[in-house]
Amino acid sequence: MSVLFQPFPLRNVVLPNRLVLPAMVTRLSGEDGLVNDDIRARYVRFARGGVGLIVIEAMAVHGAKSGPLLRISSDEFKPGLSDLCARVHDAGPSKVVPQIIHFLKISRSGWRQTVDMLSLEEIDAIVDAYGAAAVRARECGFDGVELHMAHAYTLSSFLSRLNPRKDDYGGTLANRLRLPLRVVRHVRERVGDDFTVGVRFVGDECVRNGYTTLDAGPIAIELARAGVDYVSLSAGGKFEDARVIEGEPLYPYTGYSGDRCMPGSAYPDGANLYIPEAVRASLRAAGLDTPVVAAGKLGSLAIAEKVLERGQGDLVGMARALLADPDLPNKWRTGREDAVVRCLYGNVCKALDESFRRVDCTLWPKKLGQAPESTDTEPPVWPAAGAGLRAECKEGKILLRWQSASDNEAMYGYQVFRAERVATGGVLVHHASVRAVSTRYEDNRVVAGGEYRYAIRPYDLAGNRGPMTETIEVRVSE
Amino acid sequence: MSVLFQPFPLRNVVLPNRLVLPAMVTRLSGEDGLVNDDIRARYVRFARGGVGLIVIEAMAVHGAKSGPLLRISSDEFKPGLSDLCARVHDAGPSKVVPQIIHFLKISRSGWRQTVDMLSLEEIDAIVDAYGAAAVRARECGFDGVELHMAHAYTLSSFLSRLNPRKDDYGGTLANRLRLPLRVVRHVRERVGDDFTVGVRFVGDECVRNGYTTLDAGPIAIELARAGVDYVSLSAGGKFEDARVIEGEPLYPYTGYSGDRCMPGSAYPDGANLYIPEAVRASLRAAGLDTPVVAAGKLGSLAIAEKVLERGQGDLVGMARALLADPDLPNKWRTGREDAVVRCLYGNVCKALDESFRRVDCTLWPKKLGQAPESTDTEPPVWPAAGAGLRAECKEGKILLRWQSASDNEAMYGYQVFRAERVATGGVLVHHASVRAVSTRYEDNRVVAGGEYRYAIRPYDLAGNRGPMTETIEVRVSE
Repeated sequence: MSVLFQPFPLRNVVLPNRLVLPAMVTRLSGEDGLVNDDIRARYVRFARGGVGLIVIEAMAVHGAKSGPLLRISSDEFKPGLSDLCARVHDAGPSKVVPQIIHFLKISRSGWRQTVDMLSLEEIDAIVDAYGAAAVRARECGFDGVELHMAHAYTLSSFLSRLNPRKDDYGGTLANRLRLPLRVVRHVRERVGDDFTVGVRFVGDECVRNGYTTLDAGPIAIELARAGVDYVSLSAGGKFEDARVIEGEPLYPYTGYSGDRCMPGSAYPDGANLYIPEAVRASLRAAGLDTPVVAAGKLGSLAIAEKVLERGQGDLVGMARALLADPDLPNKWRTGREDAVVRCLYGNVCKALDESFRRVDCTLWPKKLGQAPESTDTEPPVWPAAGAGLRAECKEGKILLRWQSASDNEAMYGYQVFRAERVATGGVLVHHASVRAVSTRYEDNRVVAGGEYRYAIRPYDLAGNRGPMTETIEVRVSE
Repeated sequence: MSVLFQPFPLRNVVLPNRLVLPAMVTRLSGEDGLVNDDIRARYVRFARGGVGLIVIEAMAVHGAKSGPLLRISSDEFKPGLSDLCARVHDAGPSKVVPQIIHFLKISRSGWRQTVDMLSLEEIDAIVDAYGAAAVRARECGFDGVELHMAHAYTLSSFLSRLNPRKDDYGGTLANRLRLPLRVVRHVRERVGDDFTVGVRFVGDECVRNGYTTLDAGPIAIELARAGVDYVSLSAGGKFEDARVIEGEPLYPYTGYSGDRCMPGSAYPDGANLYIPEAVRASLRAAGLDTPVVAAGKLGSLAIAEKVLERGQGDLVGMARALLADPDLPNKWRTGREDAVVRCLYGNVCKALDESFRRVDCTLWPKKLGQAPESTDTEPPVWPAAGAGLRAECKEGKILLRWQSASDNEAMYGYQVFRAERVATGGVLVHHASVRAVSTRYEDNRVVAGGEYRYAIRPYDLAGNRGPMTETIEVRVSE
């Protein structure tokens, strides 16, 4: 069996496998910060799919105003969180930790609070709030806690090379690390020695004059020495290059650093792997065996295994791929990679988040609000052999059309496979997925004079695959 | 001998080694576009240092208005260019090609011409202008020509994923490639089969919604099939994220993509190597053996050799490292790596370019306007053993001071060596260089509680090294 499915020990728990769901905004919570039915359903669904570690979306350690967001800032939130934790544990072998966050103020006028506006008392209060929240996480039954030090939020802004403070909390790397290290040491002291404390931070800020892996290595080393049990690496997601939209608060995933944070279809698989690779090498060179979580377009079994083989990470994080198909871990584990509903990295989920709407996957059947589940085993069928697959080249694109497949239960969608001499040596590989409402696909990732072969395969809600169409060949006019 | 110093054949010439000087702005030319004494001296100096291929800074194929810039847009420029070419050939074994460029209009008002404003006739004129310029390059005696398709200039803006044209020259990758491929085919037709035609383009635009290596692979394949003899890979340098400064024309190296184009001291060595690595793999998978030039902070012998070993490139480009010390190739080749004046990647040269000033290296002795040359063999000496080296830790930084060294001829500067347990296993490695006018160095790349060892070594104009000081140890307070 793949090393991905060998157990992995953290401080106080053993993960059943090496797949991790990093914290991902759902926008399913209300303004009250309480766990609700939608939140419960979403995370229980992930647990049923068999992922090794679930990191629950960021919840605030403090009471600052914000849009809908989970809270862990006082004891009133504990019953809901305890119940969520118990349900996730009941649903499968996954371990579960909440990500806990502190953020600064932001307004629709475009103004935002920056770290240089914080008094020393306010800084002390951040340390205390993290400590109290971590204790609550432990009391709720979670397996650990993850400290959010990534993207545009408070602790990340302290770590940033753009941290504008002139005192002991800004300037040199040692000073920029001062508050994050205080938080780690305080949390460790509060939760004790038998509770996992992880950190997520960015290994490359991806903004002008930001830091790169050159600082991320020392940052990871210092965090590990202060008592952190794993480091989970992200990229970008900063305010500095966010797009300014009149009357809207700045949103930190709208600029280039937002592209890099959640690399979309224009990026190669594993676009950010240089980050965990460099950070892990720094940790190991310092004699530290702290596990590293890699992430960023790692949605295929082949690349996930390569991450471990090449030492680019110890754990493989994937948010969007698990949103598309929470059963991915169980399917991979049981040799059914073929049945995974593959994320297209079209970032419709990212766009939903940006427009403050519920984060669903566009591949899910409409109105379901959740990835479908079914125990049906009967595959869909085509109306006729070949399924009427046609292709035409138009304006430098290739347009494919085919007939609808049908299923005893419900159709889910179609997979498009493509072969090109150059990139795949003529072997058909998965190229795109199309929801069942459509029976056409436009391929614009082609070059003039290029020759391509295509075939289509239908799949139903249970992930059962119907037969592949016959292949069709087409040449792009010069 | 290192494989770096094995000859490398291009179409019509054999490079004496695998080191390349990519085109680099000098701002030494006048408004008249003619070669002058300063330009001649600069490139002859590079040739004397032994680099394998010199790419002369971009010269315009057309007559559009601009600041000081070389021109190859009409026959009046040929005598100066022929003379420059002959002098470079006379000075050493280097081969030499000019980079030829087309750019669009830009004004101080902030307005800039974009590719969608070009008529089909203007597009045809671009093709013709490249063809005529390439023929002139051949007539001047150059060994080939490099077509500038990188950064913020015309052909790069056609290749861009942000190309806004709605016709056959925009939209799909095939359309975006249409003009660049027309240029390559036309140039090849005009210059014949025995003249090297290279291309420089960006493998990652490093701007929001820009293209990445996923497009760069197919782009390189198409260029190679159209008749290109090498592809030289850069990154970023785009207008889209350039900083807007009132009353100044936009300058494409001032945003994040400018950081990525010339990765500075905050970046790891070889920060952009993922680009030539991915592009080269695409070319090879397509059965093409087109050589790939890697670039981006490749200034040490160790990393330059690794580029070739790991298949991240066939040729190693370095602009800033050769500016700092044009003799680097000869020093590496003869086992004197030690004597290289090492680029600090502080990007003072980039800042000079940005402020429209002559591009010198800050490590050069003041007023020289050129890297020094000397045949002196007598090393500098310290006034006393240990040279009074002192260290103190202050506000999270380490401040080093020492006494001046003296030399029979002239002092050039001091090298700072540092050892840290974590990153170097306690071995002293080159950490920084300081010009002779100063006898202090402030190290702010340290962490609280970290322990560091330092030593200083003086060097003179000829690169002769004096004795290392005794080492000094210092611990950063927490």
